[in-house]
Amino acid sequence: MKKSDRPLILVTNDDGIFAPGIITLAEEMKAFGDVLVVAPDKPQSAMGHAITIHNFLRLREVEFMEGVRAFSCTGTPVDCVKLAVYHIIKGRPALLVSGVNHGSNLSINVLYSGTMSAAVEGALEGVPSIGFSLMEYGIEASFEHTRSVVRSVTTNVLKNGLGKGCCLNVNIPPVSAGPLKGIRVCRQALGHWEDAVETRRDPANHEYHWLKGMFIANDKGEDTDVWATDHGYASLVPVQFDMTAHHEVGNINTWDHAL
Amino acid sequence: MKKSDRPLILVTNDDGIFAPGIITLAEEMKAFGDVLVVAPDKPQSAMGHAITIHNFLRLREVEFMEGVRAFSCTGTPVDCVKLAVYHIIKGRPALLVSGVNHGSNLSINVLYSGTMSAAVEGALEGVPSIGFSLMEYGIEASFEHTRSVVRSVTTNVLKNGLGKGCCLNVNIPPVSAGPLKGIRVCRQALGHWEDAVETRRDPANHEYHWLKGMFIANDKGEDTDVWATDHGYASLVPVQFDMTAHHEVGNINTWDHAL
Repeated sequence: MKKSDRPLILVTNDDGIFAPGIITLAEEMKAFGDVLVVAPDKPQSAMGHAITIHNFLRLREVEFMEGVRAFSCTGTPVDCVKLAVYHIIKGRPALLVSGVNHGSNLSINVLYSGTMSAAVEGALEGVPSIGFSLMEYGIEASFEHTRSVVRSVTTNVLKNGLGKGCCLNVNIPPVSAGPLKGIRVCRQALGHWEDAVETRRDPANHEYHWLKGMFIANDKGEDTDVWATDHGYASLVPVQFDMTAHHEVGNINTWDHAL
Repeated sequence: MKKSDRPLILVTNDDGIFAPGIITLAEEMKAFGDVLVVAPDKPQSAMGHAITIHNFLRLREVEFMEGVRAFSCTGTPVDCVKLAVYHIIKGRPALLVSGVNHGSNLSINVLYSGTMSAAVEGALEGVPSIGFSLMEYGIEASFEHTRSVVRSVTTNVLKNGLGKGCCLNVNIPPVSAGPLKGIRVCRQALGHWEDAVETRRDPANHEYHWLKGMFIANDKGEDTDVWATDHGYASLVPVQFDMTAHHEVGNINTWDHAL
């Protein structure tokens, strides 16, 4: 990459390089720095922190937007971050932004989300990273009102930095929820997927199964991302990747661990 | 599933249903309860918390082991857990065990690991869950000395239970490291992958890329899983899925969040 005085901003997502949300995000980033897009060539939602180790990856430089260099990648969102850092840039960008995702990444969905896994991978690489999600599915979703949130959070991160190993998970209610009341700093709500399996039969009469589920937020705390977005705010959850249950260490140390 | 007085134990992995490690694990589980195996039909390492939402899934009942019902699944480890709970069992098993993985899942590799993502999915479902990994790659690895660790940890979990939302990440050094000194309760070490991209050209002279990397544990704490396994112990890290960086909330609340 040729050097510039402006910060280099890596843009990725999990909905694929031609999804409307990433176009909005890249447009906004042009005001902040030089923009490089490296994003999946097809939808990679719900890929979590998957990486590709049993297959090779392809990169293809594509026409994307005036003044923006862009590559589509055959891999996952995390693969995109690794290829950007270790192959295209051969160094670390000043900022990584992922999204704007079509659909919510509240609560425990940070675990399943390709959008957020790209941001977590950025944090692992020491790059200040933000995942943005619009809580509206479907290709007709309007991303216009995400712009003010994207600008506010990006300005703050470039100005204040982020703690080591920390990235941000930002969720924005849909236009239909009315004007945004502001941004609230939150914790990840507790919740779980009440799943179901829909079983069908193919023309040869063999069973196949579709996963479907309903997300249940059973956490009424007013400091959660679910509460904030239910009450007209964009939520901002600082995210880290130490999954140790530190509060359980003492208890488990009392077990009899004889072999 | 027909009812039995013995606890129902769900066994899965990410190396695929015919990997040696899952056979060792299922053999050990037969002493503790009725065993159901639902595991991927092909290797699914490094799939993280991926689930399959853009494609359907197939299950196939397979011959596995005397007295053990077993299904191979076309999806990821997390898909296996969801299909087991919501389709095969239509309820929750008493215990979920995942592994024994071929290769380490220390430190931040809990994020990339399909083995551990299956255990985390178990915890999300309220099922006491344990991921076991042998720190040796390759099909020739000897799983014999993992048995005493599997028995000790399983006995403890069935006797003491696990805190809500908590699962266990157990890593076992290879035979070549000498006799095991015991089991140590640890935190997840800090560390990161120093990745590299190896670029090759196909016969048509187009580039393709392989990810390769070296794991760097830059955390010298003696309370970590890396320290324990480096010093002859099996490591046991309690794992939870709240990724909120609670310590950053106060600081980020001081930002100017105006839209």
